[in-house]
Amino acid sequence: MKGEERDLAYLAKLLGGRGLLGPGDDAAVLGAARGRGVRVATMDPVVEGRHFLPSDSPRDLGQKLVGRNFSDLAAMAALPEEVLVSFVFGPGWTYRRRCALYRAVDRQVRRFGGRWVGGDVAGIQGPSVFSLTALGRCPGRPIPRDGLRPGDVLHVTGPLGGAPSTRRHLRVEPRLDLAQKLSQRFPLHAMIDLSDGLALDLPRMLRASSARLGQPCLGAELFEGALPLHPSARRSPLARGAMGALAAALGDGEDFELCLGLSARASKRLEGDGSFSRILRRPIGRVCPEPGLFLLREDGTRIRLREEGYLHELP
Amino acid sequence: MKGEERDLAYLAKLLGGRGLLGPGDDAAVLGAARGRGVRVATMDPVVEGRHFLPSDSPRDLGQKLVGRNFSDLAAMAALPEEVLVSFVFGPGWTYRRRCALYRAVDRQVRRFGGRWVGGDVAGIQGPSVFSLTALGRCPGRPIPRDGLRPGDVLHVTGPLGGAPSTRRHLRVEPRLDLAQKLSQRFPLHAMIDLSDGLALDLPRMLRASSARLGQPCLGAELFEGALPLHPSARRSPLARGAMGALAAALGDGEDFELCLGLSARASKRLEGDGSFSRILRRPIGRVCPEPGLFLLREDGTRIRLREEGYLHELP
Repeated sequence: MKGEERDLAYLAKLLGGRGLLGPGDDAAVLGAARGRGVRVATMDPVVEGRHFLPSDSPRDLGQKLVGRNFSDLAAMAALPEEVLVSFVFGPGWTYRRRCALYRAVDRQVRRFGGRWVGGDVAGIQGPSVFSLTALGRCPGRPIPRDGLRPGDVLHVTGPLGGAPSTRRHLRVEPRLDLAQKLSQRFPLHAMIDLSDGLALDLPRMLRASSARLGQPCLGAELFEGALPLHPSARRSPLARGAMGALAAALGDGEDFELCLGLSARASKRLEGDGSFSRILRRPIGRVCPEPGLFLLREDGTRIRLREEGYLHELP
Repeated sequence: MKGEERDLAYLAKLLGGRGLLGPGDDAAVLGAARGRGVRVATMDPVVEGRHFLPSDSPRDLGQKLVGRNFSDLAAMAALPEEVLVSFVFGPGWTYRRRCALYRAVDRQVRRFGGRWVGGDVAGIQGPSVFSLTALGRCPGRPIPRDGLRPGDVLHVTGPLGGAPSTRRHLRVEPRLDLAQKLSQRFPLHAMIDLSDGLALDLPRMLRASSARLGQPCLGAELFEGALPLHPSARRSPLARGAMGALAAALGDGEDFELCLGLSARASKRLEGDGSFSRILRRPIGRVCPEPGLFLLREDGTRIRLREEGYLHELP
């Protein structure tokens, strides 16, 4: 295991079984809110030089900070409630610029029905770090990332690839409403938000699901031509290789679309439900019992894909 | 206003009235937990080079990170429930050292009855930043920091001064049990935890209380000889001035003792309650209607004290 994966595995072991769904999921399940569903919480930092550049506007940055965390709530089919933020400002963040960021965060939180209630502010001689904690509530059942089963069909909520080369990686639009509508109409087995790229996030779902089933690792076949490509995927540095824009859709990350798995039967129903977008209705692949990530070509042959996406490096 | 105070004032205005007690308190009040008191949340970062040094042990650091935040809960008379942590590691944090920190955090959280349920891990080319969110519950009424009234008597839970020059500023012992016992036996008007020094934290209580009463700013008189001095206060750099160790007790900060205000009548009862320590039973001062912080000398004269403590600088 590389980078953060190794630490997250250690933490999953250390904290194992504490939350109802446990760490390693998009959000931790805190417990039942009597008569009001289930309470969940998520916390993610954004780091200057890693997740954003000093030249990015406070407005975009506020959208990213809130959007990233609300996207984690969406992946659980949760809705945001309270938000806390800790701001650690490096040099260059004037009072005026800090206040612009506060307003942007507040605007985004309110836009999605949340309430910013607290946090703290500090200084640093180095890159800025902003951490946001989002508390939320699942009106229904929280959707885990580890519920995939062999034969499940996979869908995504929007086009993938090219986000880091455009401003899309900042202007995150969390799929909160869509997640509600999907989870109300279909018995979703598993859901994740695509922050590090499908080629990294999907294997995470598969590994977690295998562990839950107590089975050898599951795999997935992606259908050639079925993966929705964002127009900007073609301009991604990853698109220069033999696989073209597909490599960008798999590996760029920061799409913040949802990837969901449901039974073949439920998937058929989704395919026929005209109230969802064409992209969402089209199956992109299916879960198979052999480990690995494959591209299933139209002639029936399979190519093994590399499980690569954006992996955060640790010292 | 200087440093963080200016930002916190802006945030209080931006978020004003959203929480039941609002930002600016030690923890945000989220709402009632049906039949189980009131839910609160707090979030505080620790920054390498500001709150700790690269040479500090992961064990001490874990104690500080958890203790600081649990001390904020104690100041509300809350008890910890769930914890989320975001770790942003700079160079020098090997996997082995990171795991030692994870274990230390987990140990401290469990020690005080909390449950670490989630968070995230990232890297940074600069000083490390660790943010912790603590969710808690007040079994009774949450104690605000803005409830002081003229004539209220002030007490502190332990000796002050010298913490930054010793390891005490890392080995934080949050006064969770003591806060429960105090709030169960006495109608506390206000409480705060002394993180930045009495000479800074007490004026914060006074300003907030004045704003709540809609009155000109309240002040406080501290009784000469009544402030409990920690043995290490004498060795503080601040103790080299004319005021000696008293200046350290007022300005060093990071004591993480609680300062509480209650009516003169309740204070008399506390003075006579042998189940509390001698330090806690002794009044250290009282709230007066004139603004300012004063030292009331035994001959009845007053000296005005400077409202100074550890103020975090922002760019």
